[in-house]
Amino acid sequence: MKNINTIEFKDNILYLIDQRVLPVKTEFFACKDYKEVEFAIRDMVVRGAPAIGATAAYGVVLAANEFKNEEKDVFLKKMEEALDFLNRSRPTAVNLMWAIKRMKELIEENKDLANSEIAQKILKEAETIYNEDIETNKAMARHGNEIVEKGATILTHCNTGALATVEYGTALGVIREAHNTGKDIFVYADETRPRLQGGKLTAWELVQEGIPAKLIVDSVAATLIRDGKIDVILTGADRVANNGDAANKIGTFMLSVIAKAYNVPFYIVAPTTTIDFEMESGKGIEIEERDGEEVTHINGNRIAPEGIEVYNPAFDVTPHENITGIITEKGIIRAPFKENIAKLK
Amino acid sequence: MKNINTIEFKDNILYLIDQRVLPVKTEFFACKDYKEVEFAIRDMVVRGAPAIGATAAYGVVLAANEFKNEEKDVFLKKMEEALDFLNRSRPTAVNLMWAIKRMKELIEENKDLANSEIAQKILKEAETIYNEDIETNKAMARHGNEIVEKGATILTHCNTGALATVEYGTALGVIREAHNTGKDIFVYADETRPRLQGGKLTAWELVQEGIPAKLIVDSVAATLIRDGKIDVILTGADRVANNGDAANKIGTFMLSVIAKAYNVPFYIVAPTTTIDFEMESGKGIEIEERDGEEVTHINGNRIAPEGIEVYNPAFDVTPHENITGIITEKGIIRAPFKENIAKLK
Repeated sequence: MKNINTIEFKDNILYLIDQRVLPVKTEFFACKDYKEVEFAIRDMVVRGAPAIGATAAYGVVLAANEFKNEEKDVFLKKMEEALDFLNRSRPTAVNLMWAIKRMKELIEENKDLANSEIAQKILKEAETIYNEDIETNKAMARHGNEIVEKGATILTHCNTGALATVEYGTALGVIREAHNTGKDIFVYADETRPRLQGGKLTAWELVQEGIPAKLIVDSVAATLIRDGKIDVILTGADRVANNGDAANKIGTFMLSVIAKAYNVPFYIVAPTTTIDFEMESGKGIEIEERDGEEVTHINGNRIAPEGIEVYNPAFDVTPHENITGIITEKGIIRAPFKENIAKLK
Repeated sequence: MKNINTIEFKDNILYLIDQRVLPVKTEFFACKDYKEVEFAIRDMVVRGAPAIGATAAYGVVLAANEFKNEEKDVFLKKMEEALDFLNRSRPTAVNLMWAIKRMKELIEENKDLANSEIAQKILKEAETIYNEDIETNKAMARHGNEIVEKGATILTHCNTGALATVEYGTALGVIREAHNTGKDIFVYADETRPRLQGGKLTAWELVQEGIPAKLIVDSVAATLIRDGKIDVILTGADRVANNGDAANKIGTFMLSVIAKAYNVPFYIVAPTTTIDFEMESGKGIEIEERDGEEVTHINGNRIAPEGIEVYNPAFDVTPHENITGIITEKGIIRAPFKENIAKLK
């Protein structure tokens, strides 16, 4: 029972939910060749690191279909060009580069086979990447569900759902699992300024799934936490350091301070691929500062005066002292984080 | 040197900055009779309790001008109707009822004078209300400026400026004073979702005054406070209880928790008329829950999916333990708040 088809490959066409027009319209963007896939990633028809990785993998499938009837050397050359083209669609998406690298290695290992056999292997690899993401999310969801009590009210931030992954999601995957296993949960979703991924995407997923929920502006969370209305907070992460410090969407740190002050458990939900073993602590994580227009404009309409400067960091770092646990596909990591994360190396 | 003319009475016309179109356009709304004044208050051409009070007072002036050539009994009857009409323009604005009551008493006391003399006294009373508000704000600004260090970076929330009062403002009045006395300050302004009074109005005032400032989304404040980038936080208040608990725009409580966790001084700036001596603590203050459309729509455009429920409280209560001081026109109230507030009775 799949309610949200973020990515679907059918009859040699890749269908993507067009996240540019959600939540006002539900439209599908059909990619018939790899150039349309590159456009879809670049223009943010699809977003969320795991979703981008799987989309790019199917872009390689479409390129192989297009060029497999060429001579072997032409095929290999055109495939290399297509892979590089897809790789440049978003500059910082780790999963994109990881998926393209996997495909490059596959082609290199099998370059002596017939083109159609290589194309066959590429299709299988895309399906593997696709299914692995679902399996990882489902494993996280099962582990995470263990800490969700029956009747719990859960607070979440940003979009960490089916729309950011192939299916199910990370933090929102745990929420789905709790709902699907009849735990009678209630969700408060932060709208997550400035880009409103909570209001636009998470709220849309919650409505699609029929999960009882309310949308709030980000600053309302503090009063709900104080008043004992939140049982657990679940968010995703973009990068986790060796000591457990976690970078995530701006606003996550604020929640973690309030949660600690009022003794509400605060969990990060992220696959082990999110752990950066090269990074000693969160202090080393560079915070991307984005265009002020994300704050001064909404859907192209100006909401702040001309001439005002803006400080618009996209992420913040939550120190491990504020984190109750990190829910991964391999289980829940708890303090001491440094020692327990080292075991996963 | 008055940069922002929120309210100006000139040649028997009341001019208001049209706050419905700020910050995109700066237009003046001219009221030639009291019915236009009622519309301006009701339709939120002007907002902010002190600004509404002064506006209504000039509405009474316009009514007196309109009816002063009638017979005495007709004049008194028409004035009573006009006062009641103005009084109904906003249901919960305390300063509106206070200004209308002051005018009613004035007319009652002087009803045996000639109509033109009564009209003259009404004009004087409106000028008194207008000037008293400015004096109160300037006194708060002077007291508040004492706690602002040279070169300080100040964080503020919502709009508490000239646009919410006759002139100068409360928390933003202190910021103005610090800037005007050459303290070389820098301001971070929370955009203040959902109604964006920070992004739309405070940012506009800061640009008008040339005060160095940056606009942020509300959840960014926490990282600035943690990173030692904020020297002092200044906000207004809608109601202060006997024990110092203060109700203010949603998001204020969140700031106070982060400020306390990282030892940053947190001040409320509010006139003593804001103190509700009948209210023992903040627990008794009812929190208005407003329409979800304030969250799901911006400037009439839908930004959240149909079907999502919303929890939209307009205010929150900051407990006195989180407040460093309350800056009033009579000086700065500090702990123990209950004892020190009682002295003002």
